[in-house]
Amino acid sequence: MKKIVENLFLQMTIKEKIGQLIQVTGDFFQNGDSKITGPLSQENRLEEDVRYTVGSVLGISGASDVENIQKEYLEHNRLKIPLLFMADVVHGYKTIFPIPLGLASTFNPDMMTISSEVAASESAAGGVRVTFAPMTDLVRDPRWGRVMESTGEDPYLNSVMATASVKGFQGKLPIDETHVAATVKHFAAYGAPEAGREYNTVDISEWRFRDQYLSSYKAAIDAQVKLVMTSFNTLFGKPATGNKYLMKDILRDELTFDGVLISDWNAIEELIHHGTAEDLNNAAEIALDAGVDIDMMAFAYAKLLDNIDGIPGKVLELIDESAIRILELKKELGLFENPYIGISRQKENDVTMAQKNKQQALQVAEESIVLVKNNNGTLPLSPHQRVFLTGPTANTCDLLGSWSWKGDIDDTDSLLTQLKQKVDTIHFSEGITYHQNVPQDWNNIVDQVNDVDVIVVALGLQSSESGEATSMTNPVLPDGQIAYLRALQALGKPIVTIVITGRPLVLTTVDGLSDAVLISFFPGTMGAEALSNVLVGDTEPTGRLPMTFPENVGQIPIYYNAYNTGRPVEVGMENGEAKYISKYIDSPNEPLYPFGFGLGYANIGIVHVMITNYVVSESGTIQLVVQLANMSDYSGSTVLQCYTHQKVGETVRPLKELKWFKKIYLLANSKKEVTISLPVNNLVSVHSDLKSYVDEGYYDVMVGLNSSELSHDDIQIKYLEED
Amino acid sequence: MKKIVENLFLQMTIKEKIGQLIQVTGDFFQNGDSKITGPLSQENRLEEDVRYTVGSVLGISGASDVENIQKEYLEHNRLKIPLLFMADVVHGYKTIFPIPLGLASTFNPDMMTISSEVAASESAAGGVRVTFAPMTDLVRDPRWGRVMESTGEDPYLNSVMATASVKGFQGKLPIDETHVAATVKHFAAYGAPEAGREYNTVDISEWRFRDQYLSSYKAAIDAQVKLVMTSFNTLFGKPATGNKYLMKDILRDELTFDGVLISDWNAIEELIHHGTAEDLNNAAEIALDAGVDIDMMAFAYAKLLDNIDGIPGKVLELIDESAIRILELKKELGLFENPYIGISRQKENDVTMAQKNKQQALQVAEESIVLVKNNNGTLPLSPHQRVFLTGPTANTCDLLGSWSWKGDIDDTDSLLTQLKQKVDTIHFSEGITYHQNVPQDWNNIVDQVNDVDVIVVALGLQSSESGEATSMTNPVLPDGQIAYLRALQALGKPIVTIVITGRPLVLTTVDGLSDAVLISFFPGTMGAEALSNVLVGDTEPTGRLPMTFPENVGQIPIYYNAYNTGRPVEVGMENGEAKYISKYIDSPNEPLYPFGFGLGYANIGIVHVMITNYVVSESGTIQLVVQLANMSDYSGSTVLQCYTHQKVGETVRPLKELKWFKKIYLLANSKKEVTISLPVNNLVSVHSDLKSYVDEGYYDVMVGLNSSELSHDDIQIKYLEED
Repeated sequence: MKKIVENLFLQMTIKEKIGQLIQVTGDFFQNGDSKITGPLSQENRLEEDVRYTVGSVLGISGASDVENIQKEYLEHNRLKIPLLFMADVVHGYKTIFPIPLGLASTFNPDMMTISSEVAASESAAGGVRVTFAPMTDLVRDPRWGRVMESTGEDPYLNSVMATASVKGFQGKLPIDETHVAATVKHFAAYGAPEAGREYNTVDISEWRFRDQYLSSYKAAIDAQVKLVMTSFNTLFGKPATGNKYLMKDILRDELTFDGVLISDWNAIEELIHHGTAEDLNNAAEIALDAGVDIDMMAFAYAKLLDNIDGIPGKVLELIDESAIRILELKKELGLFENPYIGISRQKENDVTMAQKNKQQALQVAEESIVLVKNNNGTLPLSPHQRVFLTGPTANTCDLLGSWSWKGDIDDTDSLLTQLKQKVDTIHFSEGITYHQNVPQDWNNIVDQVNDVDVIVVALGLQSSESGEATSMTNPVLPDGQIAYLRALQALGKPIVTIVITGRPLVLTTVDGLSDAVLISFFPGTMGAEALSNVLVGDTEPTGRLPMTFPENVGQIPIYYNAYNTGRPVEVGMENGEAKYISKYIDSPNEPLYPFGFGLGYANIGIVHVMITNYVVSESGTIQLVVQLANMSDYSGSTVLQCYTHQKVGETVRPLKELKWFKKIYLLANSKKEVTISLPVNNLVSVHSDLKSYVDEGYYDVMVGLNSSELSHDDIQIKYLEED
Repeated sequence: MKKIVENLFLQMTIKEKIGQLIQVTGDFFQNGDSKITGPLSQENRLEEDVRYTVGSVLGISGASDVENIQKEYLEHNRLKIPLLFMADVVHGYKTIFPIPLGLASTFNPDMMTISSEVAASESAAGGVRVTFAPMTDLVRDPRWGRVMESTGEDPYLNSVMATASVKGFQGKLPIDETHVAATVKHFAAYGAPEAGREYNTVDISEWRFRDQYLSSYKAAIDAQVKLVMTSFNTLFGKPATGNKYLMKDILRDELTFDGVLISDWNAIEELIHHGTAEDLNNAAEIALDAGVDIDMMAFAYAKLLDNIDGIPGKVLELIDESAIRILELKKELGLFENPYIGISRQKENDVTMAQKNKQQALQVAEESIVLVKNNNGTLPLSPHQRVFLTGPTANTCDLLGSWSWKGDIDDTDSLLTQLKQKVDTIHFSEGITYHQNVPQDWNNIVDQVNDVDVIVVALGLQSSESGEATSMTNPVLPDGQIAYLRALQALGKPIVTIVITGRPLVLTTVDGLSDAVLISFFPGTMGAEALSNVLVGDTEPTGRLPMTFPENVGQIPIYYNAYNTGRPVEVGMENGEAKYISKYIDSPNEPLYPFGFGLGYANIGIVHVMITNYVVSESGTIQLVVQLANMSDYSGSTVLQCYTHQKVGETVRPLKELKWFKKIYLLANSKKEVTISLPVNNLVSVHSDLKSYVDEGYYDVMVGLNSSELSHDDIQIKYLEED
């Protein structure tokens, strides 16, 4: 224990210790603009004298506000223990970057780091010391609206992105005044709610949980993330927030996490709704016993104050442990040295929305855009092509996406404004709004289309249609938008469709009606400029899909890293007579767009893959040399991807598991040799006894530019003989 | 060990022992009409001399054929050990009863027993000694086509029906010559394939598996089912067929099953596809080690014959154990006393499709039909109402459903033929076939409709569109049928819609267009007469839905016995502003029709529910007295249902769990008092340590006529003080 923490701790009353464990919104200190994400039925649930003992607040920021609150608080707090300010700074503070699903689609962890760094510096200047990011929940179901805050369906991509985000938010340790502590969430498996319905039951086997869901949380913890947030859902039959096995045995003991564990909003009270706690007191004891340090807005821990003398000794010990962890976090964040650390109105002005930040947001947004279809080189547009721009997302600034609390659409341009600056001739008519069924002014549209060379149709959903509590049974574009696209397509001009979305959608019809399709996961403050740059080819779309896009809703869940089953559809069987195989009678098994898929403007291919060592020891490294060629006059990038498959396992193994990827730039008409080094311990798998280790035996090592089209080659892992 | 078995066993060579473990189709003995359900790439995989050592055959029947094969076999078999004949006799042999989902919808276990008894007597006369039924896999996903062979989504209903089926097939033990041994399948959890895709991965936590999936297999085993069949899927990361934990620890040790464990078709070889066995020899060893006695058509155990001297001692012991279990089954089935037991061409003639059997099939079919909508007393039809009958299932004999191998549609009437005998005036035009988009002869139809009082539209799917390997991503009626219904509805006459199906369908549009809706899960040989009787009110529809019918595809999986979650939608919230609750933004949470739902022609309601004991000991019985009243001039039935909910559990508990149901008949304008006795040990639940016991505490005891509308009352379970 640090000296200062020890000194304070020895002076604290039980009441003051419990206070540290309580988190409330800024509303308790002022009428702020805090973001409320849960049922707010908690007003007046805190006695006045408790207010100045609470350890942390959430959802308040701004140098002036934070400074005032801290000042007033310290005047009343007996031991002058500073308040800790936390907030949901997810993909930017004022300068908004693409939503996390878009950050993932960059397939470039540097972009995640940059986004998190900028968000950290802006929010730190605004007084925030802890952010509730990254969310690293693995998601295979686009019905779940909160998929927008995830980095998709792959354990490895999630792990890489979680690490990059923690690095960006926290910087080099100890966390300095331009960085914030990160919170990995939601522990655990929040991304797998049944039927994609928000907050619904999660049920997966412990074997699968450990094999596929755990690694991204572990990656964040290994990257020294300071906080972990519990999840709302059940796992193995118990709500995570009251699940001691999950929080003590797995999180604390196995993953050796020693930071602060914070509940999600009101999650401790919700143990009562889950039916595993009798009342708020009981809920508090269960959560404390599970090791939850901070009670966010459930006022369950506050309930203990009603009868301090009645608190059992064992519970007092848990309170002590949690209070110490919270104090140590405050120490690490420099709050004891300076309760106002990082806060500066001047700096806030200089840093927030700085030109550099916007430039970085532009670069990240550009890298996040995914081109999934481009027949006949429809894209990029030439500046001399006459363009008809239309659709509900063509002239909107609603490009920030959910969880952009401090983001302002007034700082955001629309695609129309930006594209006007890039092409000589542009006609515009909105045509249809998001949920309109019949286009406005159709005759006029037909006239305008007659005058142009290409139609750019900007479709999509509103920010409010993804994010927390926006589950949809039917993740598609509204019928009116599809009908409008169909009508436009019938006019006979090339169609470029842009889809702005916070989640994978079923785009089967859209794809069929379009010559080119660009997908942009809400791209942020600079999104319109990024899209314009990509449309005219000032930059290339280099994004790749971090999730499988289904062909239809009934395929969900569909994901690339599935098992073979006992009766797989084999090559040639797809349309054949074979009946007793694992397929549908009304749909292909394959998705519309596979994981890792995306096109560029350059024509880059893999020329040759060479494995340099076919037999590798358990401590060795698999080495591959891949020759790439850009066979076009465009300079451009691709994302080289390496997957493995254990041929025979003690348990079933996914047919493909991403183990390595890299965005690689090639000049026009050039070649490049890339070396892939894959440490054998990356091939670790979880066995039926729940132990993780690498098995001897044969592994297929696959290389390609998406998860579907891959080269195959077998290597052998052979344990070194022990002497 | 029985004496005769011991004597034989001592004389047997290893080769002969292995032979007993092999099962092949009848094709290996003749060119029969055996039903092939798996990839048949196994021809010529059995050496000629091995043929006369194999222990059992499947898929052959008929007194004459079986007698001939047995005779020839015994001439060649050294120790004169008779062949055991097995077959898929599921919901009838020649006299076809409703599919199991329809048997479940009777909510009357006697109907299941009758169906199984008739199937047993007919097939036993045809030489079958073992059937591969009942299938008791719990199913929550109508995308899975094999749901037709299940009894639905509820652990208790599944258990009751499994018990009833075993009782019907096996009769009083020892199994006599008019009964057959039953096989409970598929162990385990075959009914939960991901995304409803046949043979796909199953992944559920062991806690949930034990709490909800295990009980129906256990019920069959407790009813002394003679065989268990392995499932194709994985569970806890391993294919069931090679899952020793599942088969030894759970099935043999915990459930104390000591009968014969048979693989599903080719399932042992499929361990290779699953990626958990290297080759056929390895697959054989894994399956033997897991305790699988009979290898159905994988020829994996036959592979051991290639190198008998190389078989390890431990494997030889496993072979011995399995051979003994198979010989003991043969002994129990009376084959050693009479290899031709039960077989008689005379009896076969007398028993098969006997009038009594058909009468029973009619009764069961009637009880299986579910009325889910009946506005303004549209049904029953009066004999004097002029009827226009139309639709693809109006004049078809395709009413038997899948797994009706020996059933003959030539023995089956169509609805048209039957209804003609019931009403004075009937016009008929098919209108549209199953998958046609535009109706035939529409003008003529309009003319006919002008002449009638009511339209009966018989829609549905073909038998081949449900059953094994018929997964659908979109379980709906074809667009053409919906469009046809819409066109008919526009003609302004009352619409009675009949839906013939093998699975729950999304019927939201159908419901909206119809005045009355009857659902019939393929009703079997006598289905058309049953439907006609129900239509005209000669009998009442008393079926109830054994599965939830979703409002839309994206709600799947949807089932009544769900958990509360931490943020449930509470009364009054459904259409409110509350955002952060467990709901969809584009769909209600509620299904179209709930589990246990169905209407009758009588108007029966619950008048009063009285609990007689509010505090009950752990060894006690909860007693309820329910007063029912029939407030109509029809005599009729209802299905009284009792559900419980543990208010606070160590793990989450379903909001409702069916614990008791009974079909109850009430004369017109009469009352009836029904006593429900619920032993407290029915309230057992699985805890996070995987142990099952009843918790002390409060339980909500609910009574109603479907799972959605229920009375509530709390009782307390209190353990007796120990002396």
